[in-house]
Amino acid sequence: MFTVTVRDHLMVAHSLRGEAFGPAQRLHGATYVVDASFRRPSLDPDGVVVDIARATEQLRAVIGRLTYRNLDDEPDLAGVNTTTEVLARVVADALVARIRAGELGAGARELAGIAVTLRESHVAWASYERDL
Amino acid sequence: MFTVTVRDHLMVAHSLRGEAFGPAQRLHGATYVVDASFRRPSLDPDGVVVDIARATEQLRAVIGRLTYRNLDDEPDLAGVNTTTEVLARVVADALVARIRAGELGAGARELAGIAVTLRESHVAWASYERDL
Amino acid sequence: MFTVTVRDHLMVAHSLRGEAFGPAQRLHGATYVVDASFRRPSLDPDGVVVDIARATEQLRAVIGRLTYRNLDDEPDLAGVNTTTEVLARVVADALVARIRAGELGAGARELAGIAVTLRESHVAWASYERDL
Amino acid sequence: MFTVTVRDHLMVAHSLRGEAFGPAQRLHGATYVVDASFRRPSLDPDGVVVDIARATEQLRAVIGRLTYRNLDDEPDLAGVNTTTEVLARVVADALVARIRAGELGAGARELAGIAVTLRESHVAWASYERDL
Amino acid sequence: MFTVTVRDHLMVAHSLRGEAFGPAQRLHGATYVVDASFRRPSLDPDGVVVDIARATEQLRAVIGRLTYRNLDDEPDLAGVNTTTEVLARVVADALVARIRAGELGAGARELAGIAVTLRESHVAWASYERDL
Amino acid sequence: MFTVTVRDHLMVAHSLRGEAFGPAQRLHGATYVVDASFRRPSLDPDGVVVDIARATEQLRAVIGRLTYRNLDDEPDLAGVNTTTEVLARVVADALVARIRAGELGAGARELAGIAVTLRESHVAWASYERDL
Repeated sequence: MFTVTVRDHLMVAHSLRGEAFGPAQRLHGATYVVDASFRRPSLDPDGVVVDIARATEQLRAVIGRLTYRNLDDEPDLAGVNTTTEVLARVVADALVARIRAGELGAGARELAGIAVTLRESHVAWASYERDL
Repeated sequence: MFTVTVRDHLMVAHSLRGEAFGPAQRLHGATYVVDASFRRPSLDPDGVVVDIARATEQLRAVIGRLTYRNLDDEPDLAGVNTTTEVLARVVADALVARIRAGELGAGARELAGIAVTLRESHVAWASYERDL
Repeated sequence: MFTVTVRDHLMVAHSLRGEAFGPAQRLHGATYVVDASFRRPSLDPDGVVVDIARATEQLRAVIGRLTYRNLDDEPDLAGVNTTTEVLARVVADALVARIRAGELGAGARELAGIAVTLRESHVAWASYERDL
Repeated sequence: MFTVTVRDHLMVAHSLRGEAFGPAQRLHGATYVVDASFRRPSLDPDGVVVDIARATEQLRAVIGRLTYRNLDDEPDLAGVNTTTEVLARVVADALVARIRAGELGAGARELAGIAVTLRESHVAWASYERDL
Repeated sequence: MFTVTVRDHLMVAHSLRGEAFGPAQRLHGATYVVDASFRRPSLDPDGVVVDIARATEQLRAVIGRLTYRNLDDEPDLAGVNTTTEVLARVVADALVARIRAGELGAGARELAGIAVTLRESHVAWASYERDL
Repeated sequence: MFTVTVRDHLMVAHSLRGEAFGPAQRLHGATYVVDASFRRPSLDPDGVVVDIARATEQLRAVIGRLTYRNLDDEPDLAGVNTTTEVLARVVADALVARIRAGELGAGARELAGIAVTLRESHVAWASYERDL
């Protein structure tokens, strides 16, 4: 199995709902360093998993919808508890939609799966992975 | 699949038994930067894999039993060759015991698995992963 | 010259004032990984720059006043444009006040200087350093 | 499952064939930081996945055949588009050949699989993993 | 003193002249992860050392003149031994020229100095710093 | 000013003397990731600060005298409290002795200074720098 990963980041405000979150129930914020991984059992004729320039560009587009915002005010996330785990899934699902729309190229439809990791600090991170 | 990881570290002395270890047969030591990962196919009602504060606290408790010690003198590790691989399993198994005892909360009993990575330097690390 | 550095992090919401900040004028947030460095031309009788446990504890205390908050609402920061550079100085000055109050121990009064670096992502960071 | 990873690096010139590569079709170069991971369901009698000194030595030998070269001129790679993905497989397959030849020790024949990650920058990397 | 740093990278082929370079006398290549630091004794009215968006953009422009090339064939570098140290100076001097031309904004003319670090692998890097 | 840095690591057991060290008064251990930096105002005729292969080799030789040992039993360190700060100076001074003995080449005698950083974990490190 081959995997290619590209990295970007987003910077958001939000608050979390639930007593378990303690002080994170207050409005605060985070930088998420985002690693998007694409996997595929064999390579395309160019010898790649996915066109890395397009993957980088599409990850940037997905992140551009979220970054420099207060997630508590985003209509698309209304009623969503924007934990790191949940945001990893939001980013992954948005990438999958773009893959299916052909925005990563025709070859990207042969991807077997995707994983997204959001690093919220030097001591904590969360991932979501799914098949395609 | 969702995964959450928290990081801590421990600093121990020990010696390794077996000719293959060369100079590491002498009493020496290591800092292990420890990454404990918890995985689960779906999120709990709060939108998390595990209460990250409790996970951090329990990892610290497990590590607290090992750190700032000479592992060669620890009764619990008598007869154990404390390689990085073995220590990864020791930490993982201790976390599993705590999960089963309910110390990471009731929800943690729905975890599918755990993985522990010990980084012994910038050029070598070892992991142990197991289902729950 | 000797230098000792300890690392912690804070997670805040804020907005920046000034057209140059573009989308960062909106309410958003950041994780700042904070490195606090203490420097001294010679070591104390124990062979250290500063008691590292106390340095870690005091850095945590300083950060505890800022983290999990919306900096736009903090009375202490009213009228302050909380750029990474400014926050590095806020943290450094708070550490200096604690050093002068003796909270890092009597020996810490012999420190020559301090530097604080705030890493806001994998591609940008800012520092402030000052003499003591 | 246990995994042990060792890190080294190689520095090569090459060019990539295919319009998708844009400016990377020109002769350019890369440092690849190489992580070679060995996995095994249970440990050997010494408590290790593989003799880490031998693993390090064999990874260095494999890399020694590639580093400080222009890959476009290497007879062994004639006709190969040396993308990061392809090079990850080249390194992994060369390690597998050495494992099978007994160069990582008799115990290494019990390895379940191998993975090789090549990090080409702080924002992109590729992996290849295979069973043994 | 305040310092702001932004990171980018370049990927080049080159060869080095001089027996001391051993195998690096052959045509090979490198990824250089580039950290450009700007320092200034006091902040501008916005509370920054330099407009970070412009600094990032100008660093990208400087790197864009070098990346995805064989430096041995670049007319601007004819007769230059493109060691990591020399390239750090090339990048720094190009940034200084842009600062002086006003491309980082009027405020950037008050910068006290600049430093550029090129990381060529996980185990080696070089810096050049100069006053302005 | 130009600076070149090379990285290696050592793994030792030791205990620290002094109540301030708390549990680190017990015999324990550490991995120190060691960064040795060499600085010089201008480059040599090859365009380097120092022959990086020789610098790497000499750092390895210095570290080879310390690694895989219990520092409490080393005659050369008798009576020395082997804090991270002190060990940074031990490594730096040993490199200086080798520079003066000509082991980094004749050109290395023109070095202006040296700095050594020992990273003991992902959250703490210490440096010692001196002129030559």
